Amino acid sequence: MRLSIEVALEYTLREPADILLQIEAAQMADQRLEHQSLTIWSDHAVTATAGEDNIGQRCWVRADHALIARYEAIVAIDRPAVALRSLPATPVRMLAGPLVPYLLPSRYCESDKLEGFVRRTFGGLSGGALAAALVDWTADNLRYEAGSSVGMTTALDTFGMRTGVCRDYAHLLVALARAAEIPARCVAAYAPDVHPSDFHAVTELWLDGGWHLVDPTGMARAEEIARVCVGRDATDIAFMTVFGDAQLCRQSVRVARLDALA
Amino acid sequence: MRLSIEVALEYTLREPADILLQIEAAQMADQRLEHQSLTIWSDHAVTATAGEDNIGQRCWVRADHALIARYEAIVAIDRPAVALRSLPATPVRMLAGPLVPYLLPSRYCESDKLEGFVRRTFGGLSGGALAAALVDWTADNLRYEAGSSVGMTTALDTFGMRTGVCRDYAHLLVALARAAEIPARCVAAYAPDVHPSDFHAVTELWLDGGWHLVDPTGMARAEEIARVCVGRDATDIAFMTVFGDAQLCRQSVRVARLDALA
Amino acid sequence: MRLSIEVALEYTLREPADILLQIEAAQMADQRLEHQSLTIWSDHAVTATAGEDNIGQRCWVRADHALIARYEAIVAIDRPAVALRSLPATPVRMLAGPLVPYLLPSRYCESDKLEGFVRRTFGGLSGGALAAALVDWTADNLRYEAGSSVGMTTALDTFGMRTGVCRDYAHLLVALARAAEIPARCVAAYAPDVHPSDFHAVTELWLDGGWHLVDPTGMARAEEIARVCVGRDATDIAFMTVFGDAQLCRQSVRVARLDALA
Amino acid sequence: MRLSIEVALEYTLREPADILLQIEAAQMADQRLEHQSLTIWSDHAVTATAGEDNIGQRCWVRADHALIARYEAIVAIDRPAVALRSLPATPVRMLAGPLVPYLLPSRYCESDKLEGFVRRTFGGLSGGALAAALVDWTADNLRYEAGSSVGMTTALDTFGMRTGVCRDYAHLLVALARAAEIPARCVAAYAPDVHPSDFHAVTELWLDGGWHLVDPTGMARAEEIARVCVGRDATDIAFMTVFGDAQLCRQSVRVARLDALA
Repeated sequence: MRLSIEVALEYTLREPADILLQIEAAQMADQRLEHQSLTIWSDHAVTATAGEDNIGQRCWVRADHALIARYEAIVAIDRPAVALRSLPATPVRMLAGPLVPYLLPSRYCESDKLEGFVRRTFGGLSGGALAAALVDWTADNLRYEAGSSVGMTTALDTFGMRTGVCRDYAHLLVALARAAEIPARCVAAYAPDVHPSDFHAVTELWLDGGWHLVDPTGMARAEEIARVCVGRDATDIAFMTVFGDAQLCRQSVRVARLDALA
Repeated sequence: MRLSIEVALEYTLREPADILLQIEAAQMADQRLEHQSLTIWSDHAVTATAGEDNIGQRCWVRADHALIARYEAIVAIDRPAVALRSLPATPVRMLAGPLVPYLLPSRYCESDKLEGFVRRTFGGLSGGALAAALVDWTADNLRYEAGSSVGMTTALDTFGMRTGVCRDYAHLLVALARAAEIPARCVAAYAPDVHPSDFHAVTELWLDGGWHLVDPTGMARAEEIARVCVGRDATDIAFMTVFGDAQLCRQSVRVARLDALA
Repeated sequence: MRLSIEVALEYTLREPADILLQIEAAQMADQRLEHQSLTIWSDHAVTATAGEDNIGQRCWVRADHALIARYEAIVAIDRPAVALRSLPATPVRMLAGPLVPYLLPSRYCESDKLEGFVRRTFGGLSGGALAAALVDWTADNLRYEAGSSVGMTTALDTFGMRTGVCRDYAHLLVALARAAEIPARCVAAYAPDVHPSDFHAVTELWLDGGWHLVDPTGMARAEEIARVCVGRDATDIAFMTVFGDAQLCRQSVRVARLDALA
Repeated sequence: MRLSIEVALEYTLREPADILLQIEAAQMADQRLEHQSLTIWSDHAVTATAGEDNIGQRCWVRADHALIARYEAIVAIDRPAVALRSLPATPVRMLAGPLVPYLLPSRYCESDKLEGFVRRTFGGLSGGALAAALVDWTADNLRYEAGSSVGMTTALDTFGMRTGVCRDYAHLLVALARAAEIPARCVAAYAPDVHPSDFHAVTELWLDGGWHLVDPTGMARAEEIARVCVGRDATDIAFMTVFGDAQLCRQSVRVARLDALA
C-alpha cells in the first residue's frame, strides 16, 4: 500500500537556536520512498545525519527568527501482517549488543518497576504469546484521551492513570515488554486513520530475530505504518528538539492512503 | 485482649541532634494503657507533644552522643471485628475538614495517579464493599519481601513492583482508597505475629462515620493492633526522625499476647 | 489597609460531582472580614467545614452540570511588617505537635533532598537570618515565567529548572526552609499587584513563636496579603478540587486596594 | 602507564538466570590490553557481544545456581592529559547522529531539568571553559559519602542532596554537561586510588571532536583510567545485570599501577 504524507511546521523563535528535526520517513526494505521532499526556509545550511540504530535521518537546522518547514513524501509500504502470537521466544542471552539497551529501563519506560506486575500477570507465557498478551492488555486497559498526559508523564504514571495518548500507549507497552525480557523500542511514524491527524508514536517488539511493528492504540495496522525514526522512548524520537525556545504557530500533519487513487 | 510491648533502641550520633520519637502506644477508647514506661537516657529534658490528629504523643529528645531508649507497655485492646464489606458509603461532600487531607495525595501515596485504575477495576462498587475489594486486591497482588523497597519507594512504585514490606502495603492501600474517594491514613502500630518482629505499619479507612483498622499484609487482625500514631503516610508516622545523623547499634521490638497468661 | 476581592468561577461538568472550594478569605486576628458574600448556584446544599489548621473554611458543593460561583469580600488587614532577619532561632525540639508536619517533606516539597544544599550554602546561619537568606536566595535564583511548570512539578524540579510561577516559588521556599529546620507552610491568598491577576500562593515561616507571611515572588508585601487557607503544599490549598471532571469556562480574580478610596 | 586489574565475583542464584557481565577492559587506541583473562565457571556457553558505541564487550552468561567469575588484565594506557579549559566549543548542529543521544536526558540524568541552573550559573561560558567549570562545580559542591545514595537516586536528587558516590558524581556531571549542550556519557572503568577499591564510574565529555575522560570525584586522573564500557547512564554501564535474582557472596576489585614494578 502507499501513503501520501504532508507536513507543515511553523514556529517562531525569540533567539537563534539549533533545532533537530526528525520528520522524514525512513528508507527501509519494507517501506520504500517513491517521492520525498523536505523544504526548510533558513539562511543557514541544513545538515543531515543518521538516525538512532541507523534508521532514517535527522536534520540539524539553524534558525534565526523562525522555523518554517514543509515535508512531502509518498511511501510504498510492503510489510506483511505478522501473527505475533505464533512467534517463538528468544532467551535474552542470545541478543546481540545493539539490542541490549532495548531490554533496559529508560527515561520514560521504567521497566524495572513493572517486572513484578508482568511476572504475576503473564507468568506462564513467553515469546509471541507473551508479546500478544501485553499488546492486548495495553489496548484493553488504557483509554485514549487527548490532553490526559504531559511531557513528564512516564510509563509507570500511565500504568496507574490508565489514560494517555499514543506516546503513553507506546511507553507503557515498551516498558511492559522490557519487563518481560522482550526487547522493545519506540517508533515515530506516519499512519492514516490517526485522529486527530498528527505525528504518531508506536512500538517495535523484537521477536524471532526481527523487529515487529505494533500500534497499541489500535489506530494503525502494522502494514500501514511508515517509520520515521526509532529509539528508547520519546526522548529519542521527538519530531523536533529545540536547543533554545520556540513557539508553535502552525503545524499540520496529513497522511492518506493512495491506493484508492492509484 | 492484652498486648505486652517491649522496645529497645540504641543509636549513636556523631554530633548532638534533636530527635523525634513516636514509639508510645496511644491512649484511646479502644486501646487502654494498663502500664507504660518510656525511659530515655539523656542529659537533656524530654518534651512530649501531641501526635497527628491528637492521637498518641511524640517525644522530642536532645541527644549528644547516643540515643538509648527503652519502652514497655501493656495495652488492653477492646475493639470488635468489623465487617467492612457491609458498611455504607459516605459521599465526600459529607466529610468534615479534618478528614479532607486523607482524601488527597501525599508524599508517598500518589492517589491521583491511581484514579484511572481504581475507576476501571472497581467501578461498580462503593462504601464498604469497595473498601473490602481494595483490601483484598492489595493482599492478593503484593508479595511480602524484606528488603524489596527503599525509603524513596512510593505507592505507585509498589503498584508496579508488586512487592514490599508493611510500609509499602499500607501506602498502596491508602493510595487506592483515596483514589476511590475513601479517606485513608497510615498508622504506626504494634501487633503480635509480625515477622520479623518490628514496628508495624497498617492503615485506617474512614467508613460509616468512623476509622476502621486494616492490615493489608494480613499479619495482624484489627482486634489485636495497638496504634502508636497516625498520619498521611510514612513521613508522619516514622518511629524516629533524626534532625542530624544517627547510626543504628541495636534495635528490638517484642510484642506478645498476654491473654494466655492472664 | 483594605482589600476588595471579587472572584467569578464558571465550570461545566459532564457528570455530577462533589467539589471542594477554598476561596473565602479567612477570618483571623490580622485580617478582618468587613464584608463577604459567596454565592454558589446549585440545586444542592452547600456545606462549610474547617480549613487546615482551623484557618479559614472550605465549602463542599454538589454540582450537576455546572459550577457557577461568585465571591466578594472586603478585608481589612492589620499586620505589621516584620524584619525576619532579626528573629531568633527556635530549636526543633521546642516545636509543638501541630508544627511537626511543617518540618517534614510533603508531596511537592521534598525537603529531605535539599538538606545537603542548605547545609552547604547556608551553614553558618540560623533563625531569622537563615530564613531571610532563603527568601533572598529563592527570589534571586528563580525567574517567574507563566506556563513554565505543570501540576506534577515539584520543589526539586524547580530547584533545577530555576523558573516557575507563584506555586513553584512557594514550594521551593517551603522545601528549603524545612530542610533548614524552619517550619514552613503554603498559603493560598489574595493580594493586589499579582500579575496576571489570579489566586496567589505564598508561604509562612515559623520563627520566634509565630507564623510570618512571605511572598518569595516579591509581588506581594506581607502587610497586603489576605490568607484563604494553609497547608503542607499545593495539595492542601488548591482553590478547587473536583472529585470528577470539570472544564473551565471562565474564571476571574480581581483584588484591589481600597485605601485610596476610603 | 600500566594497570594490573583483578576482579573476583561470586553470586548465588535461587533459580537459573541469564546474566549480562560488563567487566572486561575495552581494547582501544589509548588503552592496550597486554594480557587479559576472563574465567567464568558455568555449564553453559558464554557469548560475547559488542558494547554500547562498539566500545568493549559484554558477556552473556547463563548460570544455574551460582555465578563465579574471575577477571585479570594488564592494560597499558597511553593517554595524554588534556587541558579541557582550552578546547573550543562545537555548536550542537555540528554533532553527528551517534552523539545526539548524549545531548538528551536519560533515565538517571534529567538534563532538561538542569538547563535553567546551567544557564544562570555558567551563562557566559562555552566549550572547554564551560566544561571545566562544570567539572569544578561538581567536585566542589558534592561530598563523597559511601551509602548516601540508592539505585533509584537520579542526578536531580544528587543536585539537591549534594552527596553521593562515583555513580552520582558521574550522573550529575553528565546531566549538567548535557544541559550545557555538551555531549556527555557515563563510563564504567578501572582506576587505581579508588577507595574503597571497586568498579568505578566516570564521565566522558565531547569537545573539539573527541571524547575526553573526566573523573568528577577527583579520585582518578584521566591518564590512569581503563574504560570498560560506555553508555547514557548507570543503566547501560552496570558491571552486572541479572535477568532474575542473585545474591552477593563475595566481590573484590583490585587495581594497581605496574609502572613502579616495571
